[in-house]
This record gives sequence, structure tokens and C-alpha cells, in this order.
Amino acid sequence: MRQETLAANETGSLISADRVEGTAVYNRAGNHLGSIKTVMIDKPSGKVAYAVMSFGGFLGIGEKYHPLPWGMLRYDRGQSGYVVDLDKKMLEGAPSYSASETPNYDDQAWGRKVHDYYRVPPYWM
Amino acid sequence: MRQETLAANETGSLISADRVEGTAVYNRAGNHLGSIKTVMIDKPSGKVAYAVMSFGGFLGIGEKYHPLPWGMLRYDRGQSGYVVDLDKKMLEGAPSYSASETPNYDDQAWGRKVHDYYRVPPYWM
Repeated sequence: MRQETLAANETGSLISADRVEGTAVYNRAGNHLGSIKTVMIDKPSGKVAYAVMSFGGFLGIGEKYHPLPWGMLRYDRGQSGYVVDLDKKMLEGAPSYSASETPNYDDQAWGRKVHDYYRVPPYWM
Repeated sequence: MRQETLAANETGSLISADRVEGTAVYNRAGNHLGSIKTVMIDKPSGKVAYAVMSFGGFLGIGEKYHPLPWGMLRYDRGQSGYVVDLDKKMLEGAPSYSASETPNYDDQAWGRKVHDYYRVPPYWM
């Protein structure tokens, strides 16, 4: 990939979704938690609702998806990845779904549960 | 791709960025204008600033990128693509860049020019 193309992928305040996708996620202790599979966009408002972190599994089998409120992600240049303030235990209890499940993204009660779990205000507020 | 995975890619109000990427874009006359390469996210606010439409070129060479304000895109189920109210002539004069150029995504004057061209309010307002 040429440098010019890379430059367009991230600027001071903007980042392209295809650059976010695949980025590693660590906790503050430096443990690798997973990587960003995609981001979920709220169509009417154009706001990013969640970054979906995937971890575990092989070729999609056994993979678990964790919707993380966008604001939780902090990019760390040293680790070339996102750092979230989340220990493994907290992640184990976190809202997640497998590839064979359909999450209730449209259910505001479910969305509230996700945001409450991480103690951040919902994207729709 | 399993249906369950597809279901998670788009719900009533949310859509995943990886589902937006690659989607065709048409104008109201049904002409194929290009396809969405990626979306640019404003990191501090978590708002999608632009959907970047690419067209022309071969394997990235000669490709042109048009940043389109997110709100301009309307999904049309019949065409399985986005429809924008934009004729070819208007597209020719629209702000764009090539793969060898670095757009001024951080320059608010440039951003304003893009939004003014399409007569939509900027994402930061």
C-alpha cells in the first residue's frame, strides 16, 4: 500500500472504517483481547454505535463478538492497537454473541444493557 | 456467509461498515456512479463524516475518490445500492482526489467546501 493511500486512511481527526477493521485491542495490562471486526453505524444519525471486537475461534468458528461503545477505544501508537480499560474477567461477563446468534441491535433495552455494562452513555443520547 | 452473520450486518437502524463497503452507488436516473470504498469516521464525536465513493480505474490505478456526506446516501432495495441525487455533470465538478493525492480531511475549509457543494450541513454542526 502506498504511503499516500495510508495517509488518506487516517488524518488528525478522521479515520477510515477499513483502517479500524482488523486493529488489535488490548487491555491496560497489555493483554491482547481481540481485534475489531467492524463498526456498527446508526443509519439515521450517522453515528458509530459500536466497534465490534471479535476474539477466539478459527475461520469464524467459535468466534465471539463483543459490541464495544465507540468512545471506549483509545488508540495507542506504541502497541499499534486500541486500549480499553477492561480486564479479562470483566470481558467474560460482557454482552457478546456468537456467529450463529443474531444480536438485538435494534432493541434499545439491549443497547442500554451494553452501555450500562461499560458505564458509558448510549450513543443515542 | 451464513444468514445469521448477514443478519448481524444490518438491522433496522444499524448497519456495519463492512456491509456499506463495496455497495454500489447510483444516481436517480439509475446510472452506476461507483461504489463505496470506505467510510471516514470523525474520531472525537464518533460520527461518520463521509462515505468515500470510488469509481473508474483498474486495481486502484486511475481510481477517483469522492467523499460524500453520509446523509446523502439513500439505500434502494430494488437496486441493492445507494441512490444519490447527483447527475454525472455534478459529479464531474465535485470534490475528489486520486490514489496519489492526500485529501485535506483535517482542513475544515476543505470539509466545508465538500458540504457546500452538496448543499448539506457539515457533520460537525
